[in-house]
This record gives sequence, C-alpha cells and structure tokens, in this order.
Amino acid sequence: MKKIAYLGIPGSYSHLAALEYFKDKEIDLIGAKNFRKIFDLVEKGEADYGLVPVENSLAGSVYDNYDLLYEHDIAVVGEHYLKIDLHLLGTESEMPHEVRLQHLSKVVSHYKALEQSDTFFSEHTWIQKEIYSDTAGAAKFVADQKDPLLAAIASRETAAIYGLKVLKESVHDNPHNYTRFLIIGNKQNKIKGVDKCSIIFTVLHQPGSLVLALRVMSDNKLNLVKIESRPIHGKPFEYLFYADFSWEHEQADQIEKIMEMLRENTQSVKILGYYKSGAMANV
Amino acid sequence: MKKIAYLGIPGSYSHLAALEYFKDKEIDLIGAKNFRKIFDLVEKGEADYGLVPVENSLAGSVYDNYDLLYEHDIAVVGEHYLKIDLHLLGTESEMPHEVRLQHLSKVVSHYKALEQSDTFFSEHTWIQKEIYSDTAGAAKFVADQKDPLLAAIASRETAAIYGLKVLKESVHDNPHNYTRFLIIGNKQNKIKGVDKCSIIFTVLHQPGSLVLALRVMSDNKLNLVKIESRPIHGKPFEYLFYADFSWEHEQADQIEKIMEMLRENTQSVKILGYYKSGAMANV
Repeated sequence: MKKIAYLGIPGSYSHLAALEYFKDKEIDLIGAKNFRKIFDLVEKGEADYGLVPVENSLAGSVYDNYDLLYEHDIAVVGEHYLKIDLHLLGTESEMPHEVRLQHLSKVVSHYKALEQSDTFFSEHTWIQKEIYSDTAGAAKFVADQKDPLLAAIASRETAAIYGLKVLKESVHDNPHNYTRFLIIGNKQNKIKGVDKCSIIFTVLHQPGSLVLALRVMSDNKLNLVKIESRPIHGKPFEYLFYADFSWEHEQADQIEKIMEMLRENTQSVKILGYYKSGAMANV
Repeated sequence: MKKIAYLGIPGSYSHLAALEYFKDKEIDLIGAKNFRKIFDLVEKGEADYGLVPVENSLAGSVYDNYDLLYEHDIAVVGEHYLKIDLHLLGTESEMPHEVRLQHLSKVVSHYKALEQSDTFFSEHTWIQKEIYSDTAGAAKFVADQKDPLLAAIASRETAAIYGLKVLKESVHDNPHNYTRFLIIGNKQNKIKGVDKCSIIFTVLHQPGSLVLALRVMSDNKLNLVKIESRPIHGKPFEYLFYADFSWEHEQADQIEKIMEMLRENTQSVKILGYYKSGAMANV
C-alpha cells in the first residue's frame, strides 16, 4: 500500500486528483496542511508520492510550488489534469432548492472558487460571499453549521463525504477549467517508456543565452510545452527557467545525449524528472 | 503639468517610483485604489501616464498587471527600477527606541513587507504581525492611532509624510530588493532613440513554434531580456507570451523589419511599446 500526500481534507481537488491518478492502486491518503509539508513528507520518505498543483488553465501557474520544486530533492514522476467543476452545496432541508436559493444568506468557499463563480453571484446579488481557506473545508464548515441558508462552493464529491445536497450544479463561469498536478516521488523514473520531462535551468546573463539553450531542444525536435521564469534571490532580474519538454517515443534513446548538450549550453540544469504525459478529458 | 496615476496614497512605493521617474518634470499625482483604475485613467485620457509594478526581484512577476496590459489599449513608454527599503516606523514618543522595541505589541504592513522582514520578527518574537492592504496605508494608520507600542513597516518617505519616526532602519532580510515599474501612456513612442520593447505574442499550438518565434529575435541579434507565459482563457494550456527585448542603438533602423518577420512567424503579436531601458542603482 503506497502512501500518497495531498493538500487539505477529503473532497479537496488534490484529493480528487490523487483518486483519479492512482485509481487502479491500493493507496493510503495523507492530508497535508500546506504544499511545503507535501514536499517534506516525500523528501523524508514518509510518503511514497505527493500531488502538487502547478498550473490552472484560468488562474495560471502556482508559483509557490515552482519554488518548492527548486528547493527540494524530489523527483517528478507523473502529471495529471483534473477538470474543476464547482457546485453549490447546502445541508438537507425541506425547502425546495429554488426557494432556498432566493433566501440564501451566505456562500463560503476558496477565493478563487468565489471569483470563478461571478455570474452566479451577479444573478443572486443578495448572497454574501465569505472566503474560506479551501473548498472542502468550506463544505465541511457548512455541514457542521447545519444552517439551511448557508452554502458552500466545492466539488460534487464533498457533498457525498460531508452529507450535503447539490443546490445548484456547475456555478462556475468558464467550463474550460483544468488544474495540472505533478506527482512527486523520491526516485527518478527511467527515460524508457516516457515522453515528457520537467527541468529547471539557468543561463549566463548575456544576450542570446536563453534562445541558445532552447535551440538545443528544438534542433533536436523536442517540443517545448511550457516555459516559466522565477526570480533568483540575490541576483535581481536574473531568472531560473522552468521548462517542460515532450518527445515522440522513437526519440527516447537520444534524450540523455540531448540533456548533455543542454548542460554544455547553459549555466546549470536540474532535471526534475521524466514521466508520461497526462491527458485532459473532454477539452 | 502632466497627470500621473499611481497606486495607493502618498509614500507608497508606486508614489516613490513616480517621483523618481518624473523627477525633472512638473507633475500632478493621482492616487488610484487598484491597478485596473490606473489603466482606466490612462486609457480614457484622464491621466497622461500611469506607473504599474510588473516584477519584483524577490517576489517575481505581478501577474495581474500582465493581464491588464493585454486587456487595455495603452502604450508602454518607459520603465523604472525602484529599490525597496523597508523601515520600522512609529509615532513620536519619549521612550528610547531600543526600550520601545522591547515593548512593541504589534507591527502592521503589507503581507509581502512582513514576509520580507522575517529576520526582524524572529529576533522580536513577542511582536504580533498584522496584515494591511498597503505599506503607506499602514504607516498612516499607525500615525492616526497614536499608540507608541504600535509600528508600521514602510518606506522612509512615509515617516516624513505622516509624521512618524524611524524606530529601526532596514528591517528587510534581503538588500537586493527591486521593483520594476512600467510607465504606461496613450501614445506609442517612436523607435528612434530607444533600446527596448515589450510585446505579447501567441504561437500555433504545435511543436517548435515558440522557439521559431524567439529565433527571429536572436538571429537578428535582439536580446531576450524576459519571457513570461500567461494562460489563455477558454484554451486550456495554451499561452500568451510576454517578452521584453533590447538592442544596441545602431540596430534601431532594423526593428520595424524584425517585428514584421516576427508577425510572419507567430499567430499574433501585440506591441505594447518601445522605450528606453531603465537602470538599477546600486545593484
């Protein structure tokens, strides 16, 4: 039985991502109170794997996790795309849902979930919004309060877990809402059989040096999927670059040689890990 | 007299950046309550220029402003690097500063300023931290409260503006703290006489397309200073790229032709503006 660290409490989007990614495995899920704790658990071997969100298709990158990837000695061993659906959940009540919506006093949720449900709130202007640290915690809070005029915005799964009803489905504005999670472990995957990798690199602070590094990859037909820059503390306006590359299976044999060429054309390279690229359902 | 929009109230870091950047000009400064308001004032011509922070050397990019640059019809006409120094400020009191530090009950400031003064708080563990929306507002709050055991972390200038004393200088952990501001206006600068530009571009969602675009610039000896990606809403995991390029003065005549080549090798290009690169003092 593998131990998997995720953020928050059952029903959190990290929890759902873990259930989807490890769906065929027997796992023991460990809720962590912040991202750093997930990295620490994996680094110390107290968890076999951890899941950390790095990117949301609406909100952009989760920069804290980029910084933690740099600081920790872990390996990226997989990725998973989770579709984010937001639902309005409340306690059981005899009031019909439509009547209840007209009388709701307050909705609690994570600030991003409230922000991404703007249309719902503009149509229900009498409802007060209250920020909660996480969506699953907000659902649990509503269940504990037992107030029929209080509701949470969270995943459908939290309704089942905390005994809530779905008062209104899909209150999110934009249906194209996906979060990309990285799966971290303490041992690097082999290159054979995988088609993607994540690296962090630095280049000399001089003209053309970033493009020189990227050309190594494109000249060798690797696909640059994502590039992100983060500041280097103590070196104002110099950057760490985070890049994801993918390749066709027949290129797998050349990857090690290409990484060697990359090292020769950069200042430093940290290979976070090699893994199989994930798929987005229903995009 | 030019009207300049900045964020916050007198003494804010945006206010200081405006005073430094326009130091030889007669200006009328307009405080705005959020970044969007600055863009709106400039777009509608109610301000001639605005200053918006886009990057801090410790905290990274200010993504809200990247998104606002994309949404608004404005021109980037300049940049300015401001050194961020954080000082501990309190009201006048007869107590010696050292004694007072031992008895301080609370320090208010922006959460980033509190975070960047971690060493000070680890040496003064009895002091409670309270988050305020902005540093200058925190200083004004302390001045209004007249409580000698309350202090703020803010710029030296706020002390003079709100009648506070510097209780302890330079409480920030890292001295290499700079914020880069863009100066926005409603008319593009000419290319002649400037050496830098900011653009937003998109590329086809296919292998090699990003590097193809960047090669146009590097093959023509332009220097890629910064690249940043932001999500495109409705197109999960496709990106807008924000890039800054600089060049040597003798290349100015070729810039228009190079931009044309860039258009041919990308899906879309929005030129935010041409401007003179700013300098960092004492880096």
